[in-house]
Amino acid sequence: MSEITFIAGGATAAQGFSATGEHMGIRRNRTRRDVALIVSEVPANAACVYTQNLVKGAPILVTQKHVENGIAQAVICNSGNANTCNANGIEIAEGMCSLVEQYIGVKAEDVIVASTGVIGQPMTLEPFQKNFGKLADSLEDTPAGGTRAAEAIMTTDTVSKEVAVRFPLGGKTCKLGGIAKGSGMIAPNMATMLCFLTTDAAISPVALKRALTTVTADTFNMLSVDGDTSTNDMVSIMANGMAGNTPIEACMGTDYEAFVAALYKVCEKLCAIMAKDGEGATKLLVCEVTGAKSTATAKLVAKAVIKSTLLKAAIFGADANWGRVLCAIGYAGADVDVSKVDVNFRSNRGLIPVCRGGAGVAFSEETAKEILMDDEITVQVALNSGSATAKAWGCDLTYDYVKINGDYRT
Amino acid sequence: MSEITFIAGGATAAQGFSATGEHMGIRRNRTRRDVALIVSEVPANAACVYTQNLVKGAPILVTQKHVENGIAQAVICNSGNANTCNANGIEIAEGMCSLVEQYIGVKAEDVIVASTGVIGQPMTLEPFQKNFGKLADSLEDTPAGGTRAAEAIMTTDTVSKEVAVRFPLGGKTCKLGGIAKGSGMIAPNMATMLCFLTTDAAISPVALKRALTTVTADTFNMLSVDGDTSTNDMVSIMANGMAGNTPIEACMGTDYEAFVAALYKVCEKLCAIMAKDGEGATKLLVCEVTGAKSTATAKLVAKAVIKSTLLKAAIFGADANWGRVLCAIGYAGADVDVSKVDVNFRSNRGLIPVCRGGAGVAFSEETAKEILMDDEITVQVALNSGSATAKAWGCDLTYDYVKINGDYRT
Repeated sequence: MSEITFIAGGATAAQGFSATGEHMGIRRNRTRRDVALIVSEVPANAACVYTQNLVKGAPILVTQKHVENGIAQAVICNSGNANTCNANGIEIAEGMCSLVEQYIGVKAEDVIVASTGVIGQPMTLEPFQKNFGKLADSLEDTPAGGTRAAEAIMTTDTVSKEVAVRFPLGGKTCKLGGIAKGSGMIAPNMATMLCFLTTDAAISPVALKRALTTVTADTFNMLSVDGDTSTNDMVSIMANGMAGNTPIEACMGTDYEAFVAALYKVCEKLCAIMAKDGEGATKLLVCEVTGAKSTATAKLVAKAVIKSTLLKAAIFGADANWGRVLCAIGYAGADVDVSKVDVNFRSNRGLIPVCRGGAGVAFSEETAKEILMDDEITVQVALNSGSATAKAWGCDLTYDYVKINGDYRT
Repeated sequence: MSEITFIAGGATAAQGFSATGEHMGIRRNRTRRDVALIVSEVPANAACVYTQNLVKGAPILVTQKHVENGIAQAVICNSGNANTCNANGIEIAEGMCSLVEQYIGVKAEDVIVASTGVIGQPMTLEPFQKNFGKLADSLEDTPAGGTRAAEAIMTTDTVSKEVAVRFPLGGKTCKLGGIAKGSGMIAPNMATMLCFLTTDAAISPVALKRALTTVTADTFNMLSVDGDTSTNDMVSIMANGMAGNTPIEACMGTDYEAFVAALYKVCEKLCAIMAKDGEGATKLLVCEVTGAKSTATAKLVAKAVIKSTLLKAAIFGADANWGRVLCAIGYAGADVDVSKVDVNFRSNRGLIPVCRGGAGVAFSEETAKEILMDDEITVQVALNSGSATAKAWGCDLTYDYVKINGDYRT
């Protein structure tokens, strides 16, 4: 784990990947990029996980078909319109892939397509057709290209999100990075918001899919901004093998574990960045659960705590209302002995115990307030009933969340 | 059903019930009543449903014991402190019941005790002991007494909540009424926030329990303000038989059905009042689901829609963002064919279709806005896959919700 190093960049950090993002006219705002493109020099092994929402965006259905064979070479994604609940949705999504083939030379069936924005808004291919040349021309294998792609997939995000790492694998140095977007309708279930990962590691489609599923379960699926699971969630990864390591074929062994550790590192970091940039959020809210009977129990508890609307509002107000933590644990549907529960609040400014054995302990409200004024708050929950642990990421609930979502569309 | 008539009053509407509420010093705010008392002239058959939260307030545990034999004669309830996660909680709750015995003559074991307010705050019996005489002296079988009780159980509620009906039963006229409180940490599960019902109908404890459970499942359990299931939820009902009807013994037949219908009417009305007075709410949000394959499916869908944070914020902003309705249906975990779903928005100002067969239909944004400016909004969801229906009650998400919960405690 200690050999994994964060490096600059995101989608273009790994060898052989180019990217860009331009304004093509999907959004009315002319200064905002709204289409992202990521391309691998060579066909890559690929894996995706998708939203479990029964209502699925058309791009999800097209991507599922394209990635079925475990191969992809490009990602095309627009923001400003989710291409969901539209009668011509499939046609549009396939049209976007065909344009990639026409301008870049990557086969349409090897393109991962995604859309994010308002659901149920009419959409046409026209802006793509008119401006694809500009997009193709600006494609480059530089950090700047990756950043443009990261910017182009933003909706209500206030910052673009890129993370990358370098790690050794079978004697070679591999890189793995990605870009992601939040920031509302975020409560991933088996999949997540949009995240496009790239790596130059050589790894088989089967091992890649297993690694992505495993890591997603512990990272993006443990993230919630508002409890609403989107219709367009997707995480994709392309592994083009250009690092030259001996290909990972099995879902076990040193190399596979090293790859999973690097993937976890990138996804965990993206999770924290996304949660902190949740719609209207001023604070990152993390819940660390220890001492659970099972991982399932630990996850239920961690997720219930960071999803509690009441706790989220209290954290916004820097109010050490630990009763709301206990309450959330109680309705989490988890196997918990509440009389054994300990709770601490922690931030960069210190740690304060507020509950021991399910009952309150005397604490200084002043100290608690000071600790909770920080912009990264961790709620530590010790269940004292086993050894399983879990971590979940969320954010506070603020006036701005209401403002953003009271008139997002109009 | 048509013979059920709404009448004035609440807890004291039925024959033989007295009530009151006074400020006793649990709350710092001296102008607010904080203890409610309801007493039946004679021992009554009684039933309760409770929160399913694993963390349970001490009063819940004491009441469960007291009502086990199906008999109760009084309710004592304080606001300002939930008496939950306190080491001496049981002692306090039992002490409250003993004071009722001492001052009113009702046996402590026949007292239903409840508390609502902040979780995990230290609490003593002292204010009760010092002021119980004042409470006992003000007890009266008038509408004013009932209203004082309704006021005394309020926390962040902005209005007190009382409902009563008159209905014929076996040739006699019965009355059934009650008081309730919301207005945050409201997402009842098998039980609900606090609601104390009284009736002069004669009905066995078994039939009473069945009726209460049945009606609660379709009313209070279909209510959500913020998705947080409280630790202190309880609905109680006392039936003192003073109307003189032939006692209802069985959980079937004309009389039982008539009783359930009256109970439903009162609970449904209280639900709507509670939802509309949800913390910070400016609008009542109702979801009516029709055409479901099963009642379970209809309920999952109705509840997911009124709980969606994103839809709640859109309703606050009078934004006809129907894609958020579809999204919530999709993640409800229900057996739904999304390609068959129709959605309308309805209010006293009109009705507007926004989605047919899972896809958007053209509509006037202006008309939609006008309809959504009303303070009672209904989302009609037709699943077109069966004949089961359900209804759920919620409210919009506003700046004030954040304000109230950002510093509720301090």
